[in-house]
Amino acid sequence: MRAVDLIRKKKEGLELNDEEIRFLVRGYTEHDIPDYQMSAFLMAVCFQGMTDEEILSLTLSMRDSGKVMDLGKIKGQKIDKHSTGGIGDKTTLVLSPIVASLGIPVTKMSGRGLGYTGGTVDKLQSIPGYRCEYTTDEFIDQVKKHGIIVAGQSDELAPADRMIYALRDATGTVDSIPLIASSIMSKKLSSGCDGIVLDVTCGSGAFMKDEKSARKLANLMVTIGKKAGKRMSALITSMDEPLGFAVGNSNEVKEAVGALKGNGPSDLMTVVYGLGSEMLMLAGIYSDRQSCINAMKKSVADGSAYNKMVEWISSQGGDASFLDDTSKFPAATKLTPVRALCKGYVSSIDSDMIGKSVMLLGGGRKKMSDKIDSAVGIKLIKKTGDYVRPGDIIMEISSDFGPDDDEAIHTAANAYHYSDEMPLKSDVIIGVIK
Amino acid sequence: MRAVDLIRKKKEGLELNDEEIRFLVRGYTEHDIPDYQMSAFLMAVCFQGMTDEEILSLTLSMRDSGKVMDLGKIKGQKIDKHSTGGIGDKTTLVLSPIVASLGIPVTKMSGRGLGYTGGTVDKLQSIPGYRCEYTTDEFIDQVKKHGIIVAGQSDELAPADRMIYALRDATGTVDSIPLIASSIMSKKLSSGCDGIVLDVTCGSGAFMKDEKSARKLANLMVTIGKKAGKRMSALITSMDEPLGFAVGNSNEVKEAVGALKGNGPSDLMTVVYGLGSEMLMLAGIYSDRQSCINAMKKSVADGSAYNKMVEWISSQGGDASFLDDTSKFPAATKLTPVRALCKGYVSSIDSDMIGKSVMLLGGGRKKMSDKIDSAVGIKLIKKTGDYVRPGDIIMEISSDFGPDDDEAIHTAANAYHYSDEMPLKSDVIIGVIK
Repeated sequence: MRAVDLIRKKKEGLELNDEEIRFLVRGYTEHDIPDYQMSAFLMAVCFQGMTDEEILSLTLSMRDSGKVMDLGKIKGQKIDKHSTGGIGDKTTLVLSPIVASLGIPVTKMSGRGLGYTGGTVDKLQSIPGYRCEYTTDEFIDQVKKHGIIVAGQSDELAPADRMIYALRDATGTVDSIPLIASSIMSKKLSSGCDGIVLDVTCGSGAFMKDEKSARKLANLMVTIGKKAGKRMSALITSMDEPLGFAVGNSNEVKEAVGALKGNGPSDLMTVVYGLGSEMLMLAGIYSDRQSCINAMKKSVADGSAYNKMVEWISSQGGDASFLDDTSKFPAATKLTPVRALCKGYVSSIDSDMIGKSVMLLGGGRKKMSDKIDSAVGIKLIKKTGDYVRPGDIIMEISSDFGPDDDEAIHTAANAYHYSDEMPLKSDVIIGVIK
Repeated sequence: MRAVDLIRKKKEGLELNDEEIRFLVRGYTEHDIPDYQMSAFLMAVCFQGMTDEEILSLTLSMRDSGKVMDLGKIKGQKIDKHSTGGIGDKTTLVLSPIVASLGIPVTKMSGRGLGYTGGTVDKLQSIPGYRCEYTTDEFIDQVKKHGIIVAGQSDELAPADRMIYALRDATGTVDSIPLIASSIMSKKLSSGCDGIVLDVTCGSGAFMKDEKSARKLANLMVTIGKKAGKRMSALITSMDEPLGFAVGNSNEVKEAVGALKGNGPSDLMTVVYGLGSEMLMLAGIYSDRQSCINAMKKSVADGSAYNKMVEWISSQGGDASFLDDTSKFPAATKLTPVRALCKGYVSSIDSDMIGKSVMLLGGGRKKMSDKIDSAVGIKLIKKTGDYVRPGDIIMEISSDFGPDDDEAIHTAANAYHYSDEMPLKSDVIIGVIK
């Protein structure tokens, strides 16, 4: 078998069989197939797509390029959660202690963010002492003792995906639904969970810009997961404005802590309870959504969820006094209020531009080696549907006198759109796919 | 400017400007842009194509990646000839001394063949002593003294094309008309000629399988050449059966020598006179085709062309006694006649399979480092339109007991197709594009 023949086959729109796809992935991982052949193949996939069978083969061969975690020593149903990413998305921080407080073991691995804002791991590391690197034994031990871990993605899982993702990033081949689906699912299938709940975001701040492609991606990942023997569920959620009010690393942790103290923004809590219900149902704890939501709301109201967060953060080495008193997080040096220039209803907030603004402030990475400034960020004061008058503060920008601050402020201000009429606000949860 | 953005732009079907294309080609040639980005770009071009302006930019930037020959010291109009390649194509060997004998300086550079049969340089090197490597000064000196040179392609010309071609070969991105056109034209434009005659072959043994794509390629190359200030002309010729009777390196030299002694196969001579007429007209020697043909036929008939070939071969170090007595070429060790199994008219001969057969015999290269066996080859006894009876010899295969001889013989035999009715034989010259 020769790589060039398989590239040509895909280029001509023919289907590759399992053996052929495994040959490519194994050859690439073992450095027998060079980058330039893999990138040509990936570009051909962008144009010709892949059948469900091909995507399953690609996913499983990437999973099999490394270790598959054995979580058998942890009792209970391990239900993983994954979001395709959005701006202001701190659901993992809120959701994980809630479901852990209800007895579902949380065994979460998160990547570092490459894109506009930091990833979950970056956000958590704004808490002094928080530890993200664990060996497999330590990982399992932490969950057995405390019922929860949120750690960095292990390099031992799905190395082929990591190599291919880096190549896609450099060759303009990121935005292909088969490649996105197989990348996410190869990582999730290697995590050793029993079921997976997916949050497929759509809108200006997401990979999938419209509902149709989000549904396509969600359906595809649910199909792959089921074929690989996992219980699956996916929510389609809107990313037409940032989730909650806070964007930026420590900002988002503070908002998550507030949410567990009972002050969560309604859109954030809708997504948290939506995803949590799916997790509790997949785990077999409840069979209907309302019971799940009641249980979760009770856990927040009676402090169990917040106490679980304190236990979780401390057990991973983080200074939990920052949760009790969030004013301990270092503040940015400069606070710039942004004011409305006209009157009207906020009709939409371009999440993409808010995310870009936070990256320009220093809160995200342009490249993997960039350091993140946890303190910078944006607090949205007005959100979609709010009425504003000229001079009203619409958001506050926290910055540290970075070189791109002016561009960041300009970008953020332009994210707001206005209309004379009150906009119809659509639901944040657009659909459920099982 | 970042390569990944340009890849994405092409992927989305947008047009790149001259500066952007030059950035890619220069960056790649200077190793600033890695193979994997260039191969992704090339694959995107295969799907999205290129505008005429983009192809011109690509061609000129590849030309400008190296030296452009200065042939100003050679008097007269330098008219280059290039064929997109075919099986049994020895036109350069016949045409060059004919036009040189009529006073047109021949300054031909030829590549080594990568594909089924050897290139022109490989064929010429079956003559002992024939030299292909020349410095620029030696090259010009040879033409000034003898009016003709056929040398190997200089590494100093269009190095970007050489790098990109090797990458295309390994990544399944060879069959793209914009990439084929720019590759050929970048080399031709760096050769310093005043005009170019193209032989765009089409049919089973050619890059272009049908007349439509051959015309498209020819039109494109004529357009590029004119925009670059050259006089241009292109013939579309048929490669539905091999040209002449001889295929294989020394076989083809022998047939070419015979043609200059007045015994050229009619299809070969039609192409030679067709291309030669265009060259003579572009050089301004004659203004009509018939005068050109008359002059060329006279040169063959009175021995001027043959004498020019002897002068040319000797002056480049070749043993011209092999031309006087072609039985001096080493013979292959084994001669296998292939016989017809049925009766009927030969309706077509698949050039592709004949070419593949000669490669399997050892007469062509699978990879650049392969050595060529000059003596092996195929002599077609019957061609399209000939009537055969079972047992009639249709071809003779000369081999040297190579490991793939059986497959070679089987492949060649299967190249013949028969019909009960006399086939309509189409003209070997299908069209002229100026």
